[in-house]
Amino acid sequence: MVPSVQESPLFKIANPDSIAFFGASNNVSAMGTTQLNSLKSLGFEGTIYPVHPSETEVQGLKAYRSILDVPEVPDLAVMVVPTKIVCETMEACGEKGIRHAIVISGGFKESGTDGVEREQRLVAIAKRYGIRFIGPNCLGVTNPHHRLNTTFLRYESDPGYIGMASQSGSFVTQVFNYLSQYRLGFSTAFSVGNEADVDIVDCMQYLGSCPHTRVIALYVEGIRRGREFIETARSIIPEKPIVVYYVGGSETGKKAVFSHTGAMAGPDRLYDGVFRQSGVIRAESVTELFDFCWALGNLPEPGGRRVVIQTHSGGPGAEAADICGRIGLELPDFSDETISKLSAFVPHTGSIQNPVDITFSKNWMDFFSGIPRALLEEEHTDILLMYFLMPSEMVEQSMALMGMSQEKIDIESKKFIEICCNSLTGVVREYRKPVVGFTYRSFRDHFIQELLSSGVPVFPGPERAARAVRALVRYYEMRDEIMKTGGKENDDRRAAIDSANQGSFSF
Amino acid sequence: MVPSVQESPLFKIANPDSIAFFGASNNVSAMGTTQLNSLKSLGFEGTIYPVHPSETEVQGLKAYRSILDVPEVPDLAVMVVPTKIVCETMEACGEKGIRHAIVISGGFKESGTDGVEREQRLVAIAKRYGIRFIGPNCLGVTNPHHRLNTTFLRYESDPGYIGMASQSGSFVTQVFNYLSQYRLGFSTAFSVGNEADVDIVDCMQYLGSCPHTRVIALYVEGIRRGREFIETARSIIPEKPIVVYYVGGSETGKKAVFSHTGAMAGPDRLYDGVFRQSGVIRAESVTELFDFCWALGNLPEPGGRRVVIQTHSGGPGAEAADICGRIGLELPDFSDETISKLSAFVPHTGSIQNPVDITFSKNWMDFFSGIPRALLEEEHTDILLMYFLMPSEMVEQSMALMGMSQEKIDIESKKFIEICCNSLTGVVREYRKPVVGFTYRSFRDHFIQELLSSGVPVFPGPERAARAVRALVRYYEMRDEIMKTGGKENDDRRAAIDSANQGSFSF
Repeated sequence: MVPSVQESPLFKIANPDSIAFFGASNNVSAMGTTQLNSLKSLGFEGTIYPVHPSETEVQGLKAYRSILDVPEVPDLAVMVVPTKIVCETMEACGEKGIRHAIVISGGFKESGTDGVEREQRLVAIAKRYGIRFIGPNCLGVTNPHHRLNTTFLRYESDPGYIGMASQSGSFVTQVFNYLSQYRLGFSTAFSVGNEADVDIVDCMQYLGSCPHTRVIALYVEGIRRGREFIETARSIIPEKPIVVYYVGGSETGKKAVFSHTGAMAGPDRLYDGVFRQSGVIRAESVTELFDFCWALGNLPEPGGRRVVIQTHSGGPGAEAADICGRIGLELPDFSDETISKLSAFVPHTGSIQNPVDITFSKNWMDFFSGIPRALLEEEHTDILLMYFLMPSEMVEQSMALMGMSQEKIDIESKKFIEICCNSLTGVVREYRKPVVGFTYRSFRDHFIQELLSSGVPVFPGPERAARAVRALVRYYEMRDEIMKTGGKENDDRRAAIDSANQGSFSF
Repeated sequence: MVPSVQESPLFKIANPDSIAFFGASNNVSAMGTTQLNSLKSLGFEGTIYPVHPSETEVQGLKAYRSILDVPEVPDLAVMVVPTKIVCETMEACGEKGIRHAIVISGGFKESGTDGVEREQRLVAIAKRYGIRFIGPNCLGVTNPHHRLNTTFLRYESDPGYIGMASQSGSFVTQVFNYLSQYRLGFSTAFSVGNEADVDIVDCMQYLGSCPHTRVIALYVEGIRRGREFIETARSIIPEKPIVVYYVGGSETGKKAVFSHTGAMAGPDRLYDGVFRQSGVIRAESVTELFDFCWALGNLPEPGGRRVVIQTHSGGPGAEAADICGRIGLELPDFSDETISKLSAFVPHTGSIQNPVDITFSKNWMDFFSGIPRALLEEEHTDILLMYFLMPSEMVEQSMALMGMSQEKIDIESKKFIEICCNSLTGVVREYRKPVVGFTYRSFRDHFIQELLSSGVPVFPGPERAARAVRALVRYYEMRDEIMKTGGKENDDRRAAIDSANQGSFSF
């Protein structure tokens, strides 16, 4: 981890005040044009200098024939140019005095022998001028806090707390829409491409220090600087969780990775050991990667793995209990005091065991206030897992039957939802224990959206919720382990690393 | 399986022409009123006779003081009345000549000793009159093909092909909204409650014969008629797949089930063996239950387990490959012929290995026509798994930059989406191999909605898609096995059942 984010060589890449943009034009279907426009559409507040061989204006911005004509030395160069002119563009940037670049263009190491040589040339030029760069063959960087997005898709969420470093550009760009559904967003996301210069470890160091980043997500096809990966992760874990999805875990995954980026994925067991030593949480899919980040970036530290389930329907409660048991979470019994408190809220048709099932209750507010309060007060409760149906649906139906106008119903229903949510979040804030929801409702639902914006994560189905909870528990266990053995190297671990030093994983 | 659905004792329960409704009133917040109104709102076309002790009209319908006053003998009685008058209501229905009932009311076996006696009394009355009934303590039946919905939530989808029998009413009602997101729907869904008379096996027999049902979903907390379950399942499997989510699989699940319905869940291994002998596919969550039904009800028989992945982004392709490998699906290599066909479509930056990755292509139509055609023609392809991003997004961005009005863009984009989908579905129909999609887009997306209505299942993420594909493969393997050994009992299997005859699973 670097001492402060400003000292990172990546700082000006993720937070430039001015950008030289190579490859945008007035042809709206060109990749470079799309990328320039997604940068503009996020409202980048610095200066953009399009460089174009013939146009005097590009997408409404004054354009320059040569980078040498630009009136200042831009913080960053973004290149979306044909492969054959990437090296000369880098050279020109160096001459101009630019020291940071993002090379989107492909046609390098990933495309065979010629490409390998070309990439070596590119690295040599950059080194000569002291330029730090991301790529080539990447999709760029998104830092919504700085209104920066150099990728070709529009950023759709609010600025968020997930820091991402990805060996696939898709999992930066193509999840913009995905994340926005859950009201999640990136702090800064790096598509690292071929990692000719800046690699995933550099990004981890940056994100470790980045004040907007609460949790780090990694998409990994292969790790080259193994020892540095472990050291860096261990230095970050005491402060921030790291979650990884490693795609080369199966034989078929390994083959696919090879044809995607040419990376040789190592044996799954080796990687698994490395992640464990690093204190990094492993996800089994991209969905899980972001689910885990959601829980880890949003919830307080749990006291342990004892989960209390609150439901108003037996089936979803039983399903949640079943999955908790299968993945090693515990369902504690309640103290007599809690049972007596619950008796006041739960009708005789319900259950005051764990899962607490209020079944059909006349007083919905109990579900959002009295019951969660009693359950969070219970000392055996480490985590509260709540099932959410739409409480307003039946209320709305009744209002309609009473002859209320749709307009009036919408207003009353909105009010009701707000009262439920405010009531719940008040209780949640008071007890500082993780509260996680799950539902089968669409995420369009106003009630679910209101819960999300109140900061209560709500997962689609109990399985995803329970797995995210387990990741939360696991992070704090691993963090404590790392803090006990020290963030610094020790002999045992070095021996373990050395004995694991095989395959393509290099130390 | 019953010879025809009309001969099933459940036929008039799921397809009544007239209903006596007990428990609805003009109090709009009463449960019975809500249920009557959800029945009306689906447009039930038969006659409804509300029975109410004092009102002359209930929710706009002529009401009757007593069932004896009703001018005909209704096909079905629905009871949402206080526990203490359920037995006398059943008695009155019997006297009237009614032979089918749904008892929603609770307060029976699930609520202790008194309830057990009350339930025995209820069963005795029904038996005396030859009444077949569902419940008590259930949420009722939904048959959207007959515009029947006796539950308290509104049915939100089109009539569908998933037949459901559930020991939790939640997984009938609270998934209405869930299923509609994916354009799925029920053929008929039964919430079986305490199963005092009609049980899950009866429902399976009905659904096995039901012409609208292409696949059967079961939510199981405990099976009482074990031998009949196996026999019935084996008689259905040659024609229709059955998927089960059994919730008592973990210790915590078992405890939750006990407090939910009082059923004693058996050991997981015992149930697992039973499901395997029955040829029933086991899901690990409710999400998986419906995912599997989606694939099984929608896709043709695959020739084997060889999956070809088509993508335009390396990351999602690699993720899909990885998960396929982890769950035992194979990724075949291509014949020279296919490789030469693909070369015409895939640029040099892409991959013509499996996963086929076209990366950035100028001609989107290849993705929906030429490439899937080449891949489906390939003899090593059993199943095609396609990654879908929104192809129109970048096109729309370009149109906007060209100064096109939003209205015009919407029209052009809709046209473009339709052309893509029609092109793909044309190819899909021609080759009769399963084609399954996955995406990270929201299901609100027009493109995804268009694919779904074209009959291409699109799952959120590759993991759910791949698991559904594996369920598809597994069903046909199990079906063939059952057809080989015969749907009828054989000595080996009987021995296996007898040796498994332990715990609460009763034969």
